[in-house]
Amino acid sequence: MAVEHKDMANAIRALSMDAVEQAKSGHVGLPLGMADVATVLWTRYLKHDPADPFWPDRDRFVLSAGHGSMLIYSLLHLTGYDSVSRDDIRNFRQLGAKTPGHPENFVTPGVETTTGPLGQGIATAVGMAMAERHLNARFGDELVDHKTWVVAGDGCLMEGVSQEAITLAGHMKLNKLIVLFDDNAVTIDGGTDLSDSTNQCARFEAAGWATKRIDGHNTEEIHEALSWAQDQDKPVMIACRTIIGYGAPTIAGTGKAHGGPYGAEEIAGIRENIGWSHAPFEVPDAIADAWKREGAHAAGQHGEWKKRHDAAGEKAAFDAALAGELGDIEAIVRAHKQEVVDGGKDDATRKWSGAVLEKLAAAIPEMVGGSADLSGSNNTKAKCQDPMTPDNWAGRYVHYGVREHGMAAAMNGMALHKGIIPYSGTFLVFADYSRAAIRLGALMGERVIHVMTHDSIGLGEDGPTHQPVEHVASLRAMPNMHVFRPADGVETAECWELALKKTDGPSTIALTRQTVASVRKAHTDENLSAKGGYVLSSGEGNEQVVLIATGSEVEIAVAAQEMLRSNGISARVVSMPCVELFAEQSEAYQEETLGKGLPRIVVEAGVRFGWDRWIGLRGGFVGMDSFGASAPYKDLYERFGITPDAVAEMAHALVN
Amino acid sequence: MAVEHKDMANAIRALSMDAVEQAKSGHVGLPLGMADVATVLWTRYLKHDPADPFWPDRDRFVLSAGHGSMLIYSLLHLTGYDSVSRDDIRNFRQLGAKTPGHPENFVTPGVETTTGPLGQGIATAVGMAMAERHLNARFGDELVDHKTWVVAGDGCLMEGVSQEAITLAGHMKLNKLIVLFDDNAVTIDGGTDLSDSTNQCARFEAAGWATKRIDGHNTEEIHEALSWAQDQDKPVMIACRTIIGYGAPTIAGTGKAHGGPYGAEEIAGIRENIGWSHAPFEVPDAIADAWKREGAHAAGQHGEWKKRHDAAGEKAAFDAALAGELGDIEAIVRAHKQEVVDGGKDDATRKWSGAVLEKLAAAIPEMVGGSADLSGSNNTKAKCQDPMTPDNWAGRYVHYGVREHGMAAAMNGMALHKGIIPYSGTFLVFADYSRAAIRLGALMGERVIHVMTHDSIGLGEDGPTHQPVEHVASLRAMPNMHVFRPADGVETAECWELALKKTDGPSTIALTRQTVASVRKAHTDENLSAKGGYVLSSGEGNEQVVLIATGSEVEIAVAAQEMLRSNGISARVVSMPCVELFAEQSEAYQEETLGKGLPRIVVEAGVRFGWDRWIGLRGGFVGMDSFGASAPYKDLYERFGITPDAVAEMAHALVN
Repeated sequence: MAVEHKDMANAIRALSMDAVEQAKSGHVGLPLGMADVATVLWTRYLKHDPADPFWPDRDRFVLSAGHGSMLIYSLLHLTGYDSVSRDDIRNFRQLGAKTPGHPENFVTPGVETTTGPLGQGIATAVGMAMAERHLNARFGDELVDHKTWVVAGDGCLMEGVSQEAITLAGHMKLNKLIVLFDDNAVTIDGGTDLSDSTNQCARFEAAGWATKRIDGHNTEEIHEALSWAQDQDKPVMIACRTIIGYGAPTIAGTGKAHGGPYGAEEIAGIRENIGWSHAPFEVPDAIADAWKREGAHAAGQHGEWKKRHDAAGEKAAFDAALAGELGDIEAIVRAHKQEVVDGGKDDATRKWSGAVLEKLAAAIPEMVGGSADLSGSNNTKAKCQDPMTPDNWAGRYVHYGVREHGMAAAMNGMALHKGIIPYSGTFLVFADYSRAAIRLGALMGERVIHVMTHDSIGLGEDGPTHQPVEHVASLRAMPNMHVFRPADGVETAECWELALKKTDGPSTIALTRQTVASVRKAHTDENLSAKGGYVLSSGEGNEQVVLIATGSEVEIAVAAQEMLRSNGISARVVSMPCVELFAEQSEAYQEETLGKGLPRIVVEAGVRFGWDRWIGLRGGFVGMDSFGASAPYKDLYERFGITPDAVAEMAHALVN
Repeated sequence: MAVEHKDMANAIRALSMDAVEQAKSGHVGLPLGMADVATVLWTRYLKHDPADPFWPDRDRFVLSAGHGSMLIYSLLHLTGYDSVSRDDIRNFRQLGAKTPGHPENFVTPGVETTTGPLGQGIATAVGMAMAERHLNARFGDELVDHKTWVVAGDGCLMEGVSQEAITLAGHMKLNKLIVLFDDNAVTIDGGTDLSDSTNQCARFEAAGWATKRIDGHNTEEIHEALSWAQDQDKPVMIACRTIIGYGAPTIAGTGKAHGGPYGAEEIAGIRENIGWSHAPFEVPDAIADAWKREGAHAAGQHGEWKKRHDAAGEKAAFDAALAGELGDIEAIVRAHKQEVVDGGKDDATRKWSGAVLEKLAAAIPEMVGGSADLSGSNNTKAKCQDPMTPDNWAGRYVHYGVREHGMAAAMNGMALHKGIIPYSGTFLVFADYSRAAIRLGALMGERVIHVMTHDSIGLGEDGPTHQPVEHVASLRAMPNMHVFRPADGVETAECWELALKKTDGPSTIALTRQTVASVRKAHTDENLSAKGGYVLSSGEGNEQVVLIATGSEVEIAVAAQEMLRSNGISARVVSMPCVELFAEQSEAYQEETLGKGLPRIVVEAGVRFGWDRWIGLRGGFVGMDSFGASAPYKDLYERFGITPDAVAEMAHALVN
């Protein structure tokens, strides 16, 4: 049997539809429609090696329309990746299989990023493509020279985050980024004409992309377009007109073809229409062999790359960069803390963050910073960092523009690509804009550092639209996220060290706009923030009450302690810069720190939500229970009653 | 003195810069730049009446670039609105003034919506413009025929939500929506060329808009463009090339002009450059008079409208619609509850929601529904609702497309406009996409109902990208948000009633994908969910433990109660569909409901974060402490240990 393109594409179609039928759930419309494009891409253009999903210079393939996950599982299986066996395909969407409902990179080697929430894939891919250009500038074509391919659907392109991604990519002239738009004109509710009239090619062109329209079922047109895409000096979008649910006798090309099992009759009809007579999950040897052979078309390139890599003078630096090693940052942070203590200065924690960043960024060439147009406010740019631009890819600072969501997603992509440790800044309140991408980073376990300044009513006059109240709580609620809220210069440095060392997930560093008092007056070599919370200041004699505070409110707790002391009440102050880390400590340490049986008062200029775990039954909370207001920040602290007086008064009531 | 355009525009410039200097904070770059455009608009085109900020048929003016708030305060003051006095301008950004840092509609009559978070204004305006067309279709040109004007900056247009807004508006052919783009090519970090290369006019055209470029300091071009804008059959975007910080001798046209006080020297330079020799906060009488006179240019139209309104046959219906009256929905819900109980059926709460919606939407013509492309999954479309389209504005169902963020913002706009009670659906996990708009609705106190289905791991195979774990908690953390998580058909109906009656803020109704058991077996006239939590089922004899559960986990608590009973342990089950409402009850009611001194176990398929307040010191939690996984949902409940067995086992341990 001579194996033709059609047979190979049909193998994708057959595996995909059999898997969805077996699981009785999933989305086969996209794999049926995009099988032709994917077959051409994976057998001729995609630089990959099924024997090593982690080859650093492989092309990245991102299925932004993640619901079509059977497309990628079919491709991985057919081209010979170990990660997806025929049994995994039979067990599509079952507990423990390598084939979850949406692609999860942490489950399935060969999947580059986790997708499903629409638009995230394309936005993440922009970060991957930026990482590629940056590392190319650093290590040269010999070690880094690959493309990033994206399959995106109508849904991805309707999501706002796609616009942030597209305009950033266009501005950066990311010519090695190629988006294959599955232009099937259908979404779940029906034809796209129900809800959209956008000329997508014109839209991409307005953002500086090269575009082309093709028939996504015509292999010649596909070949021609993919060849053409290699030679552009800007990012490329190819609108592939496809038929969703290709081959399905009654529902192809309709909203019904998007997802769900089609049922036996429709499936039988597809088999007949596409000329596939084999049993479910069966792929004839000739076709399977052709896939394995053609899937490995770039394996030779991998061999050559290995030789170059072995011979490269930069090999050690390259390997260390990809491993994300930090060097001796403890020493840097220790020395910095000593300086801070010796300096005896009060300042905003965002400025303290900028100060320690100068040293960390200078020592760690993988740190690539940025801000969503608030560089001066977020204090995220170190002097050693030049802007990353199409003319200077070696630059280590990204002016992301007013694109919080695209920025967070791009950082995920940089971290996934490896070779970059991304961090960037915005105002904490705008975590709401980027939350979907922040969450994906937490789910994937990527080291991404979100610097979030202006972290409470302490930002003052900008008012309640800019004042986070519930944001620290809502980020603490997210699994695998560490939220740091340091109290002063020393804690800020300690928290940066901890965030950099958290290699298995993202961190948020919440920082003040306003100046705060230094509370760590004596130097310690030890990183006291590492346990999440610690006794900052003991009371004299028998302690009667414990004041727990974070960030800018620690100085308020210290002032209250002083007031109480003058009234004969002994209070302990606990600083808790990271509740998640504190929760990981032993019960013995927690009890020792928080004081057994003593009443506890938490002071934080945010909502109480989540704090009762630590307050316990006898205690209180001084913080916010509403949105803020516009006024100078000292007026606001008075207005909302977050003052040493209020804390001391509550302590009095609890003690007496 | 003959008052010229220049003098009037300069009055805006002067008040704005004096206010920012006095406050030592704020953003005067935009008012200086857009003063010419704003003067022409407010004195010739904007249909408004300073004597009545709430005239229903007024044009809406939205300052999407909300940081330029002094522009709108100057305009309100100069045209004679009571809401902004000269003293308020002197007290810009001070506690209690009508002039907060960013425009807040709930503080300052004449401000149509709260802006500041970029992109929100333009997206909210789309909802206002849709409301206008819908009410026009319902009540005719005589009562409803006005425009929506938006001033948006580069930042607004970089935000992804703007794309969702623009493409929705283009698709809907909202020809009475006019966006004035303050095209000053500067953002905070510097020139827009740092981060963006988008051809904005081409981008808007790709979305179906009419566009034009003008010199924003040339009054003739402004007049011509605003006249032209009236006659288009599609939404209009006018790119007004302006100089940010117009007149500032050294910083005009640069990133430094964006915000912050300019300092005495620069301000003196502006006074000289623009020819304004008056003292701070002083506006010469002739200029003030001209503003009052020309600001009232449309007052006559208001008088005519009042006559038409008084004479209109639809007057009562129109007034009731704008007042947002509900009629006797208690009766509807009561009857529906009886039917549900009599039917004795088990179903998914999203389907129960669809069922009660059929009755509510039929009875309340102001209810306009929609979904972000998940109509069939969210069960948000009632049979009485036709799609709202450019050909059928009377339709009451919006196919929002895959635009969760734009949808939430548009709903804010509909609620602000009045005449519509908006609700719409998406999956709960995608609340992360729309959170910034949801929050603005909470801050503004608008009645917007977010139907969020697929509310836990109970959605099954789609996996952790689609499974909310922390979302219920993160929404509960938001001030002024009611989160409902009903357990069955009866509670779902009760929660809908409560959401509709919450006129001062948004509600989220979290609903299951999976079928859940009915737990309310007997009919009650009373809305038991109104107190947030209630005793669903008492134990026999002396109760030893209290099981508190929400939504799909209530049936698990009931099953555990039964298991415990057979083991001789008496357990009470409390259903808590709305924690916020429960928190509002008296301590006596709370204690009576939760049982004094008894150990408490909370069962919810989400994170524990926030629950300790109700668990207290002796108790436990059965729920999630990680992201979910892809598998059939029953397997997931087993895998994550959210089962009657687990609850019963924990109860045993606590009791013994």
